[in-house]
Order: sequence, then C-alpha cells, then structure tokens
Amino acid sequence: MPQLDVQRRGLMFVLSSPSGAGKSTLARSLLEGDGEITMSVSVTTRPMRPGEVEGKDYYFVSREDFGLMVNRDELLEHAKVFDHYYGTPAGPVEDALAEGRDVLFDIDWQGAQQLTQAAGDDLVKVFILPPSRQTLEERLFTRAQDSAEVVAGRMAKANDEISHWAEYDYVIINADLEIAKRQVRGILESERLKRRRQPGLADFVKQIQEGL
Amino acid sequence: MPQLDVQRRGLMFVLSSPSGAGKSTLARSLLEGDGEITMSVSVTTRPMRPGEVEGKDYYFVSREDFGLMVNRDELLEHAKVFDHYYGTPAGPVEDALAEGRDVLFDIDWQGAQQLTQAAGDDLVKVFILPPSRQTLEERLFTRAQDSAEVVAGRMAKANDEISHWAEYDYVIINADLEIAKRQVRGILESERLKRRRQPGLADFVKQIQEGL
Repeated sequence: MPQLDVQRRGLMFVLSSPSGAGKSTLARSLLEGDGEITMSVSVTTRPMRPGEVEGKDYYFVSREDFGLMVNRDELLEHAKVFDHYYGTPAGPVEDALAEGRDVLFDIDWQGAQQLTQAAGDDLVKVFILPPSRQTLEERLFTRAQDSAEVVAGRMAKANDEISHWAEYDYVIINADLEIAKRQVRGILESERLKRRRQPGLADFVKQIQEGL
Repeated sequence: MPQLDVQRRGLMFVLSSPSGAGKSTLARSLLEGDGEITMSVSVTTRPMRPGEVEGKDYYFVSREDFGLMVNRDELLEHAKVFDHYYGTPAGPVEDALAEGRDVLFDIDWQGAQQLTQAAGDDLVKVFILPPSRQTLEERLFTRAQDSAEVVAGRMAKANDEISHWAEYDYVIINADLEIAKRQVRGILESERLKRRRQPGLADFVKQIQEGL
C-alpha cells in the first residue's frame, strides 16, 4: 500500500529457511494477501513440464542463451542444480522496483548472497527458523516417508542452510504459523515505509512546505 | 513480544513530527497497546507542578546537578527551553535496552540528532507528516483559538521541523489515524525482529544445530 500519491521504489523480499521451517507456506500467504508483491520468475535450461507456463513458472531458454545471459551480466544470481541451470533475470525485477512493485524470492543462502552483491539496498532478507530441532526433524520426517539415512541427509542440508542465519536482516522463529505470517507481512509493510524507499517524499514535503 | 526465550536487546523508538501531525496521539496509542515499551522520563530543572510525580513525569533536579550530569556525559541529549533545562538520562535507557524493553521518545529533530550521535544502532527514528498543508494549518488553528499571527509563527516552526524529515529511518503520512497507528506499531514490531536486536539467537541456533 503506497502512501497517498507518494511514489515509492519496490523492494526485493528474500525468504530463506531450512526445508521444513514453513518458508513456502509463508511465501504463499504473502502472495495471496498482498496485491503489490509478486514471485520472481526464474530463467531455466531444464525442459518445460506438462502444465507449466512460459513466463509464469519459468522462462525456458537453451543452454546457449543462458550462457549469453550470464556473460552479459543479465542475471542477478544463478546456480546449477543437477544437470540444469537456473537464474534470476535482472530486467523484470528492475522494472518492478521502478514501478513501485515488490518481488518475492524463495531462495537459499547461496542465492541470497549473490543477490546481496547485485542489489544491496533494494534487498530485505528474512530468515525463518524452526522453533526446535525436534520440530525440524519431525517436519523433515513426516514430509516424506523416507529412511533414517535420507532424513539424516536432509538434516545435514538443513544445518548447512541454518548456519547462514546471521547473513539476514530479520530472523523469525516459526513457532506459531499465524504469528509468523503476521510477522512476515509486518516486515514487508514496514520496509515500504522506509524513507529511502519513498523517492516521492521530497516532492510531497515540498508541496506541504510551499503550499502548492 | 520476544520470540520464545530468545534474548533480545531493546530499542529506542523516536517519534518526531511538526505540531499538529498527530504525534502525541500515536505515541499514546503505542504505549497503551504494547506492554514492552515505556516513555522515556526526562530530567529537568524546572519546578515540579501540582500533580506531577518524581520519576514518572520527570526527574526533578537542581541546575547544579543538571550541570554535573552534562559534564559527566550522563545525558543522551539535552536542551534549554525558555529558562529551564531538559535532558534524557542515559542510565535508565541503557538498563531498559539491556533487559529487552523498548523506550519511546517524543522529541524534535534537535533531540533526535543528539540521540543519533549518542546511540546510533539502538535507534529507530520515525517521522510523521500531515497529509497536506491545508490539514496542518487547520489542525494548528483549531487547536488553539489564536490570532493569524500566532498561527503563522506555529506554521514557521512546523516548517522548520518538517525540513528535517530526511534524517529519519521511516516516514509515515498520517492521512488516516487508524492506519497510521497500525503502521507505527508495525514498525516497532518488525524492528524487534531484526537479527541484530536478538543477541540470544546465536545460542538458539546452536541448540537447533547441536540438538541440545
């Protein structure tokens, strides 16, 4: 919600957490409840799957085009996952920010680090922690009916993600989903009120002072 | 509201605005609705008035003692208003912050500048703007049934205060009091979730990672 007619610059809202801490639920809740933030759409070299929509789920490109985008510095961050490449095109994000719309990123600490390098001031980084180790283990276990070994592997990955908590601006402990939803929403709304995200304020104040 | 048992450091919440922009109403609403923030109590050399309570309204001191406090660097900010001195004692504020309680400051730009020098990172500075010059004039006029000249003097003072809006972290335009109340509250609650205001997180994360 922009204030009156004051022009604002959008922000890049990063949610990271170990798997099983509720990040996806919180991201969905944010997108559904707020008309001014949309999910970042990644570019990928993996083949389109049935039901996926170009420009909505992903921008699908060839490996060659992906390489060109990297070389031209057109990606804010990128990573290789198994055999395929994924990245965040800078253009659509910059367009959104300039128009006062926010962009949500559901990414891991590696992506967050790259975004920080590429877009420091526009970034708001929120880390979601589980309320206890036990809760985390239960969530990782319930989620997939897998062997103890597989769960241990997931736990190691979760520990790796958690180890980067101190690189984030805000840290929410997701002990109660409704409270956590309110907190995530509150951070987004407050960050929009930051002076430096409201470039239109200078003109607004001028009007008040000069009575025009 | 602290998260679980995670130890947090309190913050200094500064509200500034020109007279007539709703600052006092917003401050009162914040104090009434939140059990973890209290108003800063100033020290003053002016005589106690009937009904005032030592340590609640002010700490009343002699001019000599006030001078000693200044010399000992025991005040976070101080100012002379007409014939009397006013200041913010550092001790009670530091105690509150260390115990995870927040302190509210209803001060002007000069006090805010001094606090910034004394306590940078603990400070959250919010500036309240009126929605228009007309609203500001109406509020300044309705408030006291004074002459046009007196109102013009107040307007000049308001303009002086407004000219410092860019020294604040957040700027709220108070066009709708209920929305502004929610925004002020939201900023306070979000700032509490900042990683650096939760020194207990390092231990908390250690417990999650090591399962203790």
